[in-house]
Amino acid sequence: MERLFVIKVGGNVIDDTNALGLILTTFSSIPGKKILIHGGGKIASTIASKLGIESKYYNGRRITDKETLEVVTMVYGGLLNKNIVAQLQKNNCNAIGLTGADANIIKGTKRIAGDVNFGFVGELTSGSVDTVRLNSLLNSGLTPVLAPLIHNGEGQMLNTNADTIASTIAIAMSTLYNVRLIYCFEKNGILENVNDPDSLISLLDRSGYDELKTSGKLFAGILPKIENALDAVDSGVSEVIIGSAEDLIMNISSSHNGTLITKTSGK
Amino acid sequence: MERLFVIKVGGNVIDDTNALGLILTTFSSIPGKKILIHGGGKIASTIASKLGIESKYYNGRRITDKETLEVVTMVYGGLLNKNIVAQLQKNNCNAIGLTGADANIIKGTKRIAGDVNFGFVGELTSGSVDTVRLNSLLNSGLTPVLAPLIHNGEGQMLNTNADTIASTIAIAMSTLYNVRLIYCFEKNGILENVNDPDSLISLLDRSGYDELKTSGKLFAGILPKIENALDAVDSGVSEVIIGSAEDLIMNISSSHNGTLITKTSGK
Repeated sequence: MERLFVIKVGGNVIDDTNALGLILTTFSSIPGKKILIHGGGKIASTIASKLGIESKYYNGRRITDKETLEVVTMVYGGLLNKNIVAQLQKNNCNAIGLTGADANIIKGTKRIAGDVNFGFVGELTSGSVDTVRLNSLLNSGLTPVLAPLIHNGEGQMLNTNADTIASTIAIAMSTLYNVRLIYCFEKNGILENVNDPDSLISLLDRSGYDELKTSGKLFAGILPKIENALDAVDSGVSEVIIGSAEDLIMNISSSHNGTLITKTSGK
Repeated sequence: MERLFVIKVGGNVIDDTNALGLILTTFSSIPGKKILIHGGGKIASTIASKLGIESKYYNGRRITDKETLEVVTMVYGGLLNKNIVAQLQKNNCNAIGLTGADANIIKGTKRIAGDVNFGFVGELTSGSVDTVRLNSLLNSGLTPVLAPLIHNGEGQMLNTNADTIASTIAIAMSTLYNVRLIYCFEKNGILENVNDPDSLISLLDRSGYDELKTSGKLFAGILPKIENALDAVDSGVSEVIIGSAEDLIMNISSSHNGTLITKTSGK
């Protein structure tokens, strides 16, 4: 099968104009088909604060009330997405910026409120991605650039975790492609000790993750990312790597960097 | 040739949620191929003001400094564009929101500063539109929804007049389609007396426009719109109509509403 890169760049990279520019230049030079998913960064909180809207979080996840949804729709879907697209165009990468609403690429449902009401937050299912449409855009020479927003098909935009969008797209496209999913963030991979860059875990499978989680060594923010990554390799994605943008995108042909997430035995 | 509707909805409609909803429902029901171009509305100024950015105008046209460009990229490219797309998707219209940067649909140049520096404002030429790409999106069943933003191919987004984008797209697509360009705004057409809705001018060509302009009867804000419309009919667009959204979109099969702009004799 043909190779498809699905690359997610996280918030910290988005906030650093120089780092982002370098990464986008390198991303543009990756040959073949590729999809970029970008996170939100801190600018949404900065703009919300200037507009007098308080940013609320629960366990590190943003609570998206009506006003906050307007801010993230503006910032993620407008400011960040269009500036990334314009920079990729400069590099002769024919990018097209999309939210899940555009061309109905990703349709999900609003998360049902439990003990905590996260507000206008989207949940994805295996059928959420229109793989035929996404593949048609790729086949026509375009590079989709996805903001972390989806819609519910009833006129409602929904704020959605970019890691989850990346794994859901990678899984959906793995029926058509040999998908290599790359999560870029500020660390050089999964670390046994979050403060020690030398404690990199090169290989991680579900049993290794369960052990680390039980031992309490992993910091809370990384857990959903690893769970998305494990879901992806267990659901048909050829390869999932977590690491720094510099290591991974700059050395795209090498696989000796970051943490390689491996399949659960028997799956 | 196949018919293509190019419909521009203006700012006043964008600001009125109920009116906009009704128009989008009717727009969705127009059979065949169609492109929507939306203006900016007042919300960009409201948000700029809340962010402490002063909105500056010269002769009714916004001056776009760096901070203002960020606001319009957020508001036009994000908030307005995505909410319109989500509403069209609800109506089973498979809309895709685009700025000129997306898929390199519209590339222009930054306006050269004269006596007034309008800042990050885009100028279009006849070669600005990628008609092959736009046609490929239309042929794949998508309805492009364009925000009034373009790019310069060098990584720079540019704020651009939505009326000009509409006429430029209509002219470019007229090599492939029988294009009907419709400008919707808050009046029922071009009025001889702006305060008298009964003074509708049903037919207007360039000589009629020149007379009205000389007589000082037309109010300043309408002049660029009429000039865009005259350029369009003189450059291959089959039909250009200016009027109210209610009259024009709701009665799309009729041509007895609004002002019909007609070709200059001999062109």
